[in-house]
Amino acid sequence: MKTVFLAAGVLGALGLAGLTFASSVAEEALWKQARQYYRPLRAPEVPTQGPRAVQVKLGRMLFHDPRLSRSGVISCNTCHNLATYGTDNLPTSLGHGFVPGPRNSPTVFNAALHSRQFWDGRARDVEEQALGPILNPKEMAMPASEQVIERIASIPEYVALFKQAFPDQKNPVNYRNIGVAIGAFERLLLTPSRFDKYLEGDRKALTAREKRGLKLFLDTGCAACHSGVAVGGMVFQKFVKPGEDPERADVGRYAVTQNPKDRHVFKAYSLRNIARTYPYLHDGSVWDLGEVVRIMATVQHNRSLPSDQVADIVAFLNSLTGEIPAVARELPVLPPSRLNTPRPSLE
Amino acid sequence: MKTVFLAAGVLGALGLAGLTFASSVAEEALWKQARQYYRPLRAPEVPTQGPRAVQVKLGRMLFHDPRLSRSGVISCNTCHNLATYGTDNLPTSLGHGFVPGPRNSPTVFNAALHSRQFWDGRARDVEEQALGPILNPKEMAMPASEQVIERIASIPEYVALFKQAFPDQKNPVNYRNIGVAIGAFERLLLTPSRFDKYLEGDRKALTAREKRGLKLFLDTGCAACHSGVAVGGMVFQKFVKPGEDPERADVGRYAVTQNPKDRHVFKAYSLRNIARTYPYLHDGSVWDLGEVVRIMATVQHNRSLPSDQVADIVAFLNSLTGEIPAVARELPVLPPSRLNTPRPSLE
Repeated sequence: MKTVFLAAGVLGALGLAGLTFASSVAEEALWKQARQYYRPLRAPEVPTQGPRAVQVKLGRMLFHDPRLSRSGVISCNTCHNLATYGTDNLPTSLGHGFVPGPRNSPTVFNAALHSRQFWDGRARDVEEQALGPILNPKEMAMPASEQVIERIASIPEYVALFKQAFPDQKNPVNYRNIGVAIGAFERLLLTPSRFDKYLEGDRKALTAREKRGLKLFLDTGCAACHSGVAVGGMVFQKFVKPGEDPERADVGRYAVTQNPKDRHVFKAYSLRNIARTYPYLHDGSVWDLGEVVRIMATVQHNRSLPSDQVADIVAFLNSLTGEIPAVARELPVLPPSRLNTPRPSLE
Repeated sequence: MKTVFLAAGVLGALGLAGLTFASSVAEEALWKQARQYYRPLRAPEVPTQGPRAVQVKLGRMLFHDPRLSRSGVISCNTCHNLATYGTDNLPTSLGHGFVPGPRNSPTVFNAALHSRQFWDGRARDVEEQALGPILNPKEMAMPASEQVIERIASIPEYVALFKQAFPDQKNPVNYRNIGVAIGAFERLLLTPSRFDKYLEGDRKALTAREKRGLKLFLDTGCAACHSGVAVGGMVFQKFVKPGEDPERADVGRYAVTQNPKDRHVFKAYSLRNIARTYPYLHDGSVWDLGEVVRIMATVQHNRSLPSDQVADIVAFLNSLTGEIPAVARELPVLPPSRLNTPRPSLE
């Protein structure tokens, strides 16, 4: 009897060791697989002195300043609300006149990491992107950049900050520099998460379920588009919603390039903070993250995922939620308009 | 010759001493006169622990949460922007549908010190005031308090905070407590200024010009309405703009009391941060602070003030601008909606 028990114990121990060994091999393989697609995101250094620090300060002020809109009500922060992870959590944003725009407002967090800006990639970088909505008649609706500059240049505190932010320039108060300043601020809006700890080598930073989700995510092929440090935001991909009439669907990047291959092509969204940046897709039509996972698996990979796998992938996606950094949690004090500052207008 | 010079010198010194004596007597008299009407405002203690600290934290979150509006776009901060001294610097605010409201949005800074809230005094305190705009169809346009609670109660992080903020209550997630929490936050929005240093005894805290302005302000009778720790906000006064047809003018407090004596009666505005809370009057029709001083001197005191006196009074009014406190400069991180959270609506 004693021998039998002993033999069973030895076999059991060997089995457990074998399982542990197998699981640690699988763990190692998953980590290596993930590292093929991703590099950890690190918190940026926030400049504390010199012109760059002033650009960041100025950029944060401009980001929150509703005087960049015709009505005097809409700021960058209205649609890219930093209190809600850089989005407004609406299907599409309300612009001048309370009219919804054509596409969902993407988050500004981690946007600086993308290869191009906007769903159709029509802007090169965040500096260029920031200048678009100000003049868009469906968004902030300023009639022209001259009117924007007229407002800003009438406010001495802004003029002084532009001079400090761009000390080598003769006429620093110009439209382009508004974008440079807002861009300097936005480049700090990075949100490392538990996934980055995992990528850095801490295998316990993700739960067993999140790792299952990561493996499913990679094995399903999601990383083909959602790769790189932003877990997306790097490539463009054709996308028509199931059941949507392609004739009536948003033409996407085609409007920018006029290349027929770009019809219905959109930037693959960055999945960082995806749990916070609902609703989803370029038209903001889907509120359930699990449903988006299901739709994408079907449309892009012709795969029908069972519910438990969808739930595991969603668990992994939740691990991409980072913390809103201190630089974004500070509300600036805006300088007052003067009597010669052009006034808000509803026309 | 020497004697003559000496005599002249002695006489001169006596004259100077006499002047200095006279001016210090006048200084002392002005300070005492000011102290008859005003007490210094002190920075409040910000609670750091216990239920009151949670109320403040929760109140700040609710103040910034656009989900308190039907559209999901308008928060308290939209019209009472803390980055611009608690106002939107518009004649009247844009509410649901981008439609301007009937009266100028007063600042939330120092509002807790007022005897009553709103231009017509229809709310008793900031706790009651905070609940008005949420349900006003021309403002945040929620259909009823039940729908507000439905949204908030669907968000577990909010439910947990209400429990911590109101630990003795069985059902703390209720509409009244939304007002109590926002009020707890707003009661900290106080902005002591140089004028308070002066009132505390530092005679050099105001410049000579500002003191001339203060004296003119008091001698003209402005303190009859603009008195107390908020330099206004305590009493109601009849006001019809010069040239305005009384038949068509805003009836003011009459709409609240139905008392004919209250026709065209409004709360006398607090003058703290008045230089930042343009445009002026209950309809926000005047942008120039000097012009308001002139109008008020004419309408309320039948006095036509020369330009230099107006400028001196404006200089004094500028000394009432305080600093936006740290508690107001922190942007909260708002908890995410859930799939069962009632969605924003444009209808």
